Amino acid sequence: MLHDPNRVYVFDTTLRDGEQVPGCQLTTPEKIEIARELESLGIDIIEAGFPASSPGDFQSVVEIAKAVTNPTVCALTRAHQKDIDAAAEALKYAKHPRIHTGIGSSDMHIRTKFNSTREEILERAVAAVKYAKKFVEDIEFYAEDAGRADIHYLALMVESVIAAGATVVNIPDTNGYCLPDQYGSKIRFLKENVKNIDKAIISVHCHNDLGLATANSVAGLQNGARQIEGTINGIGERAGNTSIEEVVMILKTHHDLGLHTNINTKQFYELSRMVSTQMRMPVQPNKAIVGANAFAHSSGIHQDGFLKNRENYEIIRPEDVGFPSASIVLTARSGRHALKFHLERLGYTLNKEELADAYARFLTLADSKLNIDDEDLKGLMVGQLAKVQ
Amino acid sequence: MLHDPNRVYVFDTTLRDGEQVPGCQLTTPEKIEIARELESLGIDIIEAGFPASSPGDFQSVVEIAKAVTNPTVCALTRAHQKDIDAAAEALKYAKHPRIHTGIGSSDMHIRTKFNSTREEILERAVAAVKYAKKFVEDIEFYAEDAGRADIHYLALMVESVIAAGATVVNIPDTNGYCLPDQYGSKIRFLKENVKNIDKAIISVHCHNDLGLATANSVAGLQNGARQIEGTINGIGERAGNTSIEEVVMILKTHHDLGLHTNINTKQFYELSRMVSTQMRMPVQPNKAIVGANAFAHSSGIHQDGFLKNRENYEIIRPEDVGFPSASIVLTARSGRHALKFHLERLGYTLNKEELADAYARFLTLADSKLNIDDEDLKGLMVGQLAKVQ
Repeated sequence: MLHDPNRVYVFDTTLRDGEQVPGCQLTTPEKIEIARELESLGIDIIEAGFPASSPGDFQSVVEIAKAVTNPTVCALTRAHQKDIDAAAEALKYAKHPRIHTGIGSSDMHIRTKFNSTREEILERAVAAVKYAKKFVEDIEFYAEDAGRADIHYLALMVESVIAAGATVVNIPDTNGYCLPDQYGSKIRFLKENVKNIDKAIISVHCHNDLGLATANSVAGLQNGARQIEGTINGIGERAGNTSIEEVVMILKTHHDLGLHTNINTKQFYELSRMVSTQMRMPVQPNKAIVGANAFAHSSGIHQDGFLKNRENYEIIRPEDVGFPSASIVLTARSGRHALKFHLERLGYTLNKEELADAYARFLTLADSKLNIDDEDLKGLMVGQLAKVQ
Repeated sequence: MLHDPNRVYVFDTTLRDGEQVPGCQLTTPEKIEIARELESLGIDIIEAGFPASSPGDFQSVVEIAKAVTNPTVCALTRAHQKDIDAAAEALKYAKHPRIHTGIGSSDMHIRTKFNSTREEILERAVAAVKYAKKFVEDIEFYAEDAGRADIHYLALMVESVIAAGATVVNIPDTNGYCLPDQYGSKIRFLKENVKNIDKAIISVHCHNDLGLATANSVAGLQNGARQIEGTINGIGERAGNTSIEEVVMILKTHHDLGLHTNINTKQFYELSRMVSTQMRMPVQPNKAIVGANAFAHSSGIHQDGFLKNRENYEIIRPEDVGFPSASIVLTARSGRHALKFHLERLGYTLNKEELADAYARFLTLADSKLNIDDEDLKGLMVGQLAKVQ
């Protein structure tokens, strides 16, 4: 099934797991606009919605399926026939349809959510996959709360659903509980112990409750997973999902992993803004990859090192993610080197003594003003220029 | 030196690495207010500033040193005598002073930032520690860009500065480049190969450029580090530092690690809000631990599972981090808006009709009960959820 063993598929659930968050709801035309941008970004699979949940969501899946060509369009279901019927119907126009069905796999979910037994849940899982397979070829199965599931039961469930026709097996850390080494070990166990595992792709779906979604996803890929699920800006239920932009840039930066995706990373920044604006979910300035300050160097030590060789403090070029430009911001923590850089940019060439003089006045000003802009710098130089000229 | 081998020290640099970010500058009184809150939180070491960088920063370190009693107060320097002189002077009033000095350790920094050689940099490192040791007993040494340094050279540097008197050795992943397994291996190598390593505490200082700061910090602790450096809300240079609240809650949640801190986790939420407001750095709703949605369950599937057993979808109790709860009083005098607010806080999104329906039932309940708490509200919603599913 996998032609290139090092190719990682990227599954976006911004329009499903992201869109269900309070305040993030979109109209169908807005969803179509984002779906088209996801296609342009090079996303492999777009999870378009949960058709059984509401007529509006059903219709959105229909329209997204019509609107995009290259990506697989995926619809979520529980392990219920009526959910699967709705998904199959909504995906009727998709060029590459996928049904995403599944059920809880941890004993806690089995007992307290389903009031059931391992045996009965396994039967329901297999039945759901077989039923979905009547409608489409490409079936992804999620083993909900796999992060806390008994690993031997999980392996049995994975083997059974693959035998029933699942093409992708999703091992979600539903509650964001796992540490990276624990999550990686689970994926490795499945890869090494499920005898038909090579007939399916292992997918990682991590949540960020402890701030570990990105690290867990990468640990999964290091241990044999080849699909990563996430959202733009990491939005989603509670503390959100894995940030697609973070995982993709880790793979791009760490050539040592030998893994690659089909993503046009230069589109990340613009898409991040679009999702943030349309879904009314602010991106904090210190967000990795797409935050407003992600490439801003502010301390004097860093600015000095950056100006000597940008790679001293920069492992990703801002242009690689479509970021407007790297900025050296002047504040009271900036050093002489940064001040000189900006003064030269404005046309002032200073010798060492002149710079020392300007720097002393700069520090006095910067202690009383948050950010020093070009006009401040020109003001700073008025006295000095008079002397020079 | 370490009495309890499982105790992790928490080093906060919100007022230094955080405060140097564009737009985050604070006045000295604001810094004192935050420092007092950090003391109340149980922070072990407060990095108060970089005294040589500006007169304002010098004064802030002086005032913070006077204002707090229990935490160690730390001042940053480069490996320069004049920086160390300023730090020592600024720390004069600290009950527990620490000087934090250091220099680049990667070949890239050594060559392109310092235009120097490994031998010369090693000499400067040792000289800085010895010089600082004349002023205070507690010296932390940072090996800048350790994440990209040659591991054997790094080990030699660490051994040399410990021999010179360093009590803490900080191994920063300055550029946020490392993967957790790589960073953990570095710490383990130092722990196993530096012969005097038990005379110092290994500290982890990670940056979040690839979204891995929290995971890398935990990997460092799993491999022998016992101090973690970070900031509240993960603010800091570029994509920020490690979020202290995330690492502390990971240690608290994962008893299997056997590590503990002295942090009063119930104060996290309030301090997060204070830092966000005073430093003008928004916290995104999907931020782990302290984001507005961090504990909001929104999808019907999750709400249903949550109501059956909150642990199905909750690994941290909101009250453990001081997340606001319905102790804000809801009574029969409360309006629809208050009810909606509280229901949304609990993850229920209602349309107008659903709210009207819920409000009618709420009024009946509130007429018979003085205060309505979260459990009452959840009970109120059970019937409504059943309809949705």
